[in-house]
Amino acid sequence: MQYALSDGVYLMTLERGELAVATLQQFATTKGIKNGYFTGIGAVDQLTCGYYDLAQKQYYFTEYHDLVEVVSLTGNIFLKDGTPFVHVHGVFTNTTNAAFGGHIVEMRVGVTLEVVFTPLASAHTRVPNECIGLALVELPQSFPAEPSVG
Amino acid sequence: MQYALSDGVYLMTLERGELAVATLQQFATTKGIKNGYFTGIGAVDQLTCGYYDLAQKQYYFTEYHDLVEVVSLTGNIFLKDGTPFVHVHGVFTNTTNAAFGGHIVEMRVGVTLEVVFTPLASAHTRVPNECIGLALVELPQSFPAEPSVG
Amino acid sequence: MQYALSDGVYLMTLERGELAVATLQQFATTKGIKNGYFTGIGAVDQLTCGYYDLAQKQYYFTEYHDLVEVVSLTGNIFLKDGTPFVHVHGVFTNTTNAAFGGHIVEMRVGVTLEVVFTPLASAHTRVPNECIGLALVELPQSFPAEPSVG
Repeated sequence: MQYALSDGVYLMTLERGELAVATLQQFATTKGIKNGYFTGIGAVDQLTCGYYDLAQKQYYFTEYHDLVEVVSLTGNIFLKDGTPFVHVHGVFTNTTNAAFGGHIVEMRVGVTLEVVFTPLASAHTRVPNECIGLALVELPQSFPAEPSVG
Repeated sequence: MQYALSDGVYLMTLERGELAVATLQQFATTKGIKNGYFTGIGAVDQLTCGYYDLAQKQYYFTEYHDLVEVVSLTGNIFLKDGTPFVHVHGVFTNTTNAAFGGHIVEMRVGVTLEVVFTPLASAHTRVPNECIGLALVELPQSFPAEPSVG
Repeated sequence: MQYALSDGVYLMTLERGELAVATLQQFATTKGIKNGYFTGIGAVDQLTCGYYDLAQKQYYFTEYHDLVEVVSLTGNIFLKDGTPFVHVHGVFTNTTNAAFGGHIVEMRVGVTLEVVFTPLASAHTRVPNECIGLALVELPQSFPAEPSVG
């Protein structure tokens, strides 16, 4: 991965063969970035993505082994168990231009992956939620504001 | 909805059961935010979205009642009739990972919805456009610049 | 195209009939913007998009002539041969709400196109890559850091 810090955002280009999620997670860890968000476009040639089944409280993933365009990548980084965790969803198109996607486990760059990553100074964290079965982001303020007691 | 202001952007997590568009619109109204833009990922279990038919000058919407991944959410806020109005398009994936979407009327959070919302200090507004049949954003500068008269 | 600079980002509305990629590229050139990134939503009525075939080292494009929703637009600007070059991927939905898309050559605005464009002060550039067959963004830093020699 090559990168540059420009006006407070990291411009990144991941190279063919790199694992995108692992690389972003390692980058955040190395740089001490605890929160942030990113978008990206490019093409990948290995991909595992899918959906969450709330009734079963588990993900169902499919593996893809063709070169596909990354037409939309939207992700964030929050702490989870004390380290930066990448949560990213993506849309991909194949040789018919049909779109598919979901929650991304990992994907390997096939041509290039161009990412704009905005680091944040905050350190908000994910906390396991038993009802949902996932670690959800907890943030300090509520809207609508919780009525005060007493 | 929980939120935090971090380096000028609002990090937000909407909870299962919340109506996303209404909540974002109420948030902007309460905070006095007249313009802004956002992205988001998550999962929703009720959704109304569709497309605009320019010839008929009307929207055609479909309702969905399954849990689907929100793989891309791109939206903005401009004033309309004096109050903040949310315009948002989304891409969703189902249990086959197939993608669909469109212009979103409303959607109910099914698992979580993680939004990064950037407020802006400006107060640009939508104005009804008779040719198009919609209220379109009007901005003060033109490109290419209009030739000056005289 | 109408636009406004708000808190360092350009809000833009492209009008029915405008060519989106050419307009963004001309805007960047005129304003002397060498790097930047953008997102957008709207609807277009002419579109050429497709995918890159790495084995053949060429793009395969399809033309569309129907009004479709632009549900996600993610793009960047880097220099290429000394001038600003727009690289943009998009997701579109038709009258069945089905999603398709890919690497965009050009698209003509059908209803409106609302873009949030963030200009950057840097001047990073694309450089032809023979292995890939495309001009890829080159950035000055490596991650993981290249081991120093000696």
